[in-house]
Amino acid sequence: MTLNLEAKKVLLRKIPHGLFICGVRDEEIDEVNGFTASWVTQGSFTPPLVIMAVRAEGSSHEIIRKTNKFSLNVLKHDQKDLAAVFFKPQKALGGRFESVQFKLGDLGLPILLDSVGGLECKVIGNVMHGDHTVFVGEVMSAFLNNDVNALDLNSTGWNYGG
Amino acid sequence: MTLNLEAKKVLLRKIPHGLFICGVRDEEIDEVNGFTASWVTQGSFTPPLVIMAVRAEGSSHEIIRKTNKFSLNVLKHDQKDLAAVFFKPQKALGGRFESVQFKLGDLGLPILLDSVGGLECKVIGNVMHGDHTVFVGEVMSAFLNNDVNALDLNSTGWNYGG
Repeated sequence: MTLNLEAKKVLLRKIPHGLFICGVRDEEIDEVNGFTASWVTQGSFTPPLVIMAVRAEGSSHEIIRKTNKFSLNVLKHDQKDLAAVFFKPQKALGGRFESVQFKLGDLGLPILLDSVGGLECKVIGNVMHGDHTVFVGEVMSAFLNNDVNALDLNSTGWNYGG
Repeated sequence: MTLNLEAKKVLLRKIPHGLFICGVRDEEIDEVNGFTASWVTQGSFTPPLVIMAVRAEGSSHEIIRKTNKFSLNVLKHDQKDLAAVFFKPQKALGGRFESVQFKLGDLGLPILLDSVGGLECKVIGNVMHGDHTVFVGEVMSAFLNNDVNALDLNSTGWNYGG
């Protein structure tokens, strides 16, 4: 069996993807960080679960592994520039959230103030197999700021997938 | 901590979702079945992984659990009617694929002939926690039929999520 790599790429890129800012926080060293997450989908109605795949190499990945929680901020359709700030891998912690206003939610995770809104999730399971780790999180809190259309990956002209 | 259910629903519905036909096959009893899957995202580049959440009550869920494989067919933007055929829960097996032409792929799974294309996946992990099970599958084969825009949930006016 030989995988047709071109067909695989074309088909995986047909999966619609959003652009979210995932927030993490390590209370022990008082560090807040975040990154752009695109591979996100719902995982259950009851309890409400979200699924997110996170690059296994990143520093935020380690914080999620350690703290078992993350926030998921939904960006407004016109916040592509903000997504770009959080897009590139970054080893140093703490830098990205300096340029945006946020509060800490019920779980102590960063919730952007200028966004559609944000969710805080407690990790209830994961699958570690490839270059990303699949985290499944239960939604514990939800903050709605502006009920407007969300940014999605397709509208930005960027690709992440395939 | 009290979860704001309305905010949770609004925010979860901002996650872009597609509409795929997931195919399953139990060789032992020579049964082919399928259902509409919407909660799908990518899970890794290397190896190529896809993530899919499947209603835990369905008969197809049991077949995936037993066979550890599934196909994911990407529908064309104008195939909403076909998606509807596979949408409703159905206890009896075998009915849905009678109305559409398909072939069996390298893993013996149904691949629709009239579609954007299809992937066959081997399950490498799962998280069973809520009313859906999160399956993570490695893409083993890919068949591209027509590289056109895919159907997505938003364009159908249907909701599945929140």
